[in-house]
Amino acid sequence: MTAAGAQVVWRTTVGDDLETMTEAIARAMQRADLVITTGGLGPTNDDITKKAICKYFKRPLIFYDKILKKIEARFKQRGLTMPAINQNQALLPQAAEFIDNPVGSAVGIAIKEEDGLFVATPGVPSEMEPMIEGWVTDAIKKRSGEIVTIHRKLRTVGIIESVLYEKIADLIDIKVQTGRTERSAGDEKIAVAFLPAWKGVDVRLTAVTKDENQSRLKIEELENKITERIGKYIYGYDDDSLADVIGRMLREKHLTIAVAESCTGGLLGKTITDIPGSSDYFAGGVIAYSNELKMKLLLVPQIILEKHGAVSEECARYMAEGVVQNLGANMGVSITGIAGPSGGTDEKPVGIVYIGLSVAGETRVKEFRFGNDRERNRERSAVVALDMVRRYLLEK
Amino acid sequence: MTAAGAQVVWRTTVGDDLETMTEAIARAMQRADLVITTGGLGPTNDDITKKAICKYFKRPLIFYDKILKKIEARFKQRGLTMPAINQNQALLPQAAEFIDNPVGSAVGIAIKEEDGLFVATPGVPSEMEPMIEGWVTDAIKKRSGEIVTIHRKLRTVGIIESVLYEKIADLIDIKVQTGRTERSAGDEKIAVAFLPAWKGVDVRLTAVTKDENQSRLKIEELENKITERIGKYIYGYDDDSLADVIGRMLREKHLTIAVAESCTGGLLGKTITDIPGSSDYFAGGVIAYSNELKMKLLLVPQIILEKHGAVSEECARYMAEGVVQNLGANMGVSITGIAGPSGGTDEKPVGIVYIGLSVAGETRVKEFRFGNDRERNRERSAVVALDMVRRYLLEK
Repeated sequence: MTAAGAQVVWRTTVGDDLETMTEAIARAMQRADLVITTGGLGPTNDDITKKAICKYFKRPLIFYDKILKKIEARFKQRGLTMPAINQNQALLPQAAEFIDNPVGSAVGIAIKEEDGLFVATPGVPSEMEPMIEGWVTDAIKKRSGEIVTIHRKLRTVGIIESVLYEKIADLIDIKVQTGRTERSAGDEKIAVAFLPAWKGVDVRLTAVTKDENQSRLKIEELENKITERIGKYIYGYDDDSLADVIGRMLREKHLTIAVAESCTGGLLGKTITDIPGSSDYFAGGVIAYSNELKMKLLLVPQIILEKHGAVSEECARYMAEGVVQNLGANMGVSITGIAGPSGGTDEKPVGIVYIGLSVAGETRVKEFRFGNDRERNRERSAVVALDMVRRYLLEK
Repeated sequence: MTAAGAQVVWRTTVGDDLETMTEAIARAMQRADLVITTGGLGPTNDDITKKAICKYFKRPLIFYDKILKKIEARFKQRGLTMPAINQNQALLPQAAEFIDNPVGSAVGIAIKEEDGLFVATPGVPSEMEPMIEGWVTDAIKKRSGEIVTIHRKLRTVGIIESVLYEKIADLIDIKVQTGRTERSAGDEKIAVAFLPAWKGVDVRLTAVTKDENQSRLKIEELENKITERIGKYIYGYDDDSLADVIGRMLREKHLTIAVAESCTGGLLGKTITDIPGSSDYFAGGVIAYSNELKMKLLLVPQIILEKHGAVSEECARYMAEGVVQNLGANMGVSITGIAGPSGGTDEKPVGIVYIGLSVAGETRVKEFRFGNDRERNRERSAVVALDMVRRYLLEK
């Protein structure tokens, strides 16, 4: 919505209580030009958003035969009989406009008032998102007129927020998020936000402007300066993921990749195959949780496991080399570690992870020491493994 | 906080704007006995929560030497020099109570008014959580007195919300979540909420009561009645995940499992190994994206791939049997399908998935037809595969 030209000023979450919901709608209509509710449009008794809408807008719920026909058709198409209760979903506020739901049986509701627009969407993300991206975004664009918001996100990995900040602080003129008054004054400064997550830190450049071309130039200029300083940490832009980026590089270089996973249990393969079309460069992988499978499917010699253990630099090396050999890919990535919460020793504590990368007869292995959180250790391992692939491909 | 006896009635998110924040605090203090803010207590210019607190409560910010000493000591302990900007964190509202921060330099702030309690905590989860779990929970328990809230969640999979609702509607006396007036009246009814997600629908039973024993009995009674009707769809309770549940069953029966994944690319293995200690029953898996690997690692005969294709009942059958044979596990689960967005044909459209389960020489395969969304098709495939394992183990 920000990209479409709206500024999000207030977000409220309330329980399924009619009075509270009505109050929430009323307050929101006072303070914003556009109010969107999500959720509570289902057929059951606890779905009371429509009642709150009718109470606030002083309109009755009426029965729309046309909507019922559509809902019935949806069920028929899926080979199901429509439960009687779904008839409720054809009861909708009088004189509202309806937003088509291509995925489910709850239609969106739009009500135009003199001084504002109200929209209700279902809460299920897959039903809500197409309405926001279609109908609502169009409505915002119509209203925001000449003022446009331009975003550019530089996505980094492998550098912490405060170090990143210190490296580029002198380049940026930090501007705190402001209310809508200031926005409509057409401020031409580029706002810079640091968005840290444990997967990496995003640096977001934003201009809210009437002069789109001028602002795009300014953003580009600032981006170039930032890239000079921290370019090697930037893996992508805007909606890029690491998996997108290495996928593009692998496809370009006509290389295939295979994975050998222990503690991540399939997460690395899953992350790579999140990308449509990844079968072009992803050969497959082995999830070798046990020593037996490390030997059988990844050709790790028994002596290595006995001498160094499954969580070791040596094992990671053999796993990466073994997956290349056994699966016949150009590159092999291996992950072995102790995700936790238990299984750690003094020498090899929870959070220790070895990641190997084998390609063209050369293998490198790195040791990492993450924290105590199982989920985060696994996610970090996958991110770091992908970043090792990215850096290798960049070097080439 | 619900477990401690508070009912969460309203949640608000606003940007770093002084007036908006002050209004948010004012509204919240009007409607609740306890108001908690998180975030904005850091040392930099965009951390303005303290200013909003002082504005609403009409108190000046004053300098607390004792707090400064503590902050300086923290930095010293970590071998760091305190940046001058952190002195700001010793500027705090007059006559407030402070909540110790064992992790960071921002202390929590508590202000007791005649008709309510206000608390501000830092936003960083690791700093906020100890304050909520300690100081705030204690304060709630003191105030809520005899009233307790009891939750019981029945987690279902394989049945859609409206069908589920119809099956049990007559058992339940839907009571919508209410404001504090009704709560303190000690209503003994059990509130039932349907919480749908595409992974499954949760049925949540809630009692807010002065008579804990009586309400626990009532919840149990209702749970038993619901279980009689829809028991086979209930895979677990409260925080259980499907992976938890099958993990417990496999461990109990001393069985091991292995996975053969095509379109899910590792997601099924990842989901099973989300559970700590899953190495007790998870042998490992093969991610076979290509036909070559389906033949080599899963022993699928070439003639099957040529005759029926990789996305077929026959291939799923061989994959499940092959992973048992090659990896030496008791059970094998296979997934092969077209996740999309491309790759579909008239005969085998995007969203078609075959899931196989092989155990003790017997193999069953089911065909599913999901939708067009790649991510959801993959997630659903993993859920359905786990549910097939659960149902098999239940039958035994």
